Amino acid sequence: MEMARVTVTDEAQIRALIDDRVKAVHGKDAQAAVRDIAPDIVSFDVVNPLRRVGSDENERRAEEWFSSFQGPIGFEIRDLSITASNNLAFSHALHRYSGTTVNGQQLGMWVRATACYRKIDGKWMMTHEHQSVPFNPQTGDASLNLEPSEH
Amino acid sequence: MEMARVTVTDEAQIRALIDDRVKAVHGKDAQAAVRDIAPDIVSFDVVNPLRRVGSDENERRAEEWFSSFQGPIGFEIRDLSITASNNLAFSHALHRYSGTTVNGQQLGMWVRATACYRKIDGKWMMTHEHQSVPFNPQTGDASLNLEPSEH
Repeated sequence: MEMARVTVTDEAQIRALIDDRVKAVHGKDAQAAVRDIAPDIVSFDVVNPLRRVGSDENERRAEEWFSSFQGPIGFEIRDLSITASNNLAFSHALHRYSGTTVNGQQLGMWVRATACYRKIDGKWMMTHEHQSVPFNPQTGDASLNLEPSEH
Repeated sequence: MEMARVTVTDEAQIRALIDDRVKAVHGKDAQAAVRDIAPDIVSFDVVNPLRRVGSDENERRAEEWFSSFQGPIGFEIRDLSITASNNLAFSHALHRYSGTTVNGQQLGMWVRATACYRKIDGKWMMTHEHQSVPFNPQTGDASLNLEPSEH
């Protein structure tokens, strides 16, 4: 029973970390958005380049992205799965980001998100993040208007 | 010292699993490509749709993809990172897939790949996979010609 209790607590801690990031994105707080990110995180982002390394890069990118919106950013999560054991964890989900850009454009898109975590000095830190949209192989276009299938 | 030895062994087992998949893709063997995949795997693939569930879907997709090439598929891995502890593991890397399509087109692209694993009944199984290319936000095009930056 003790083991089961510890596992639930780890998953709850990861869930809390995810909830904190949702709040940080919603409120466009770049510092808060990188609070639980390891200094040497490897990020595969929705947009170019292929790969970025380091939480400083993440914070800079978050500031850039946040400043492209007027008002708050909508952030919905579905199909969230969290797996945690001991000092490692991973999660995956679909994220819907939405809002109004500074140019007045209404934006809303579903993104696939995978995150990997390590417990470092007793605290969960995200050490890897992968966010993307798929592409249409017939056209070469990124698929920015897909909806999750009902299931 | 005992702990360190076990950790190295887990990482070596994940590395062997990755090497087996490289061989399976290279030889276009769809059954071998899904041998270490959990039946309920959640996949975020390079191309549409957003999300697929189940190893049967993965095998069908692998067969479809393999049959679009004449001859073997090139599969190069770089910047591979494996983290394993106890009964969970995750890995991320850049994959370069290359070859000649059945239409005679030379294809070569770098893809970001993240995989998550659980040790189930003493055997490592991939329970989640996320592969993607980023897109160019100016054009909306998937970025099929990026090269990893030197570092």
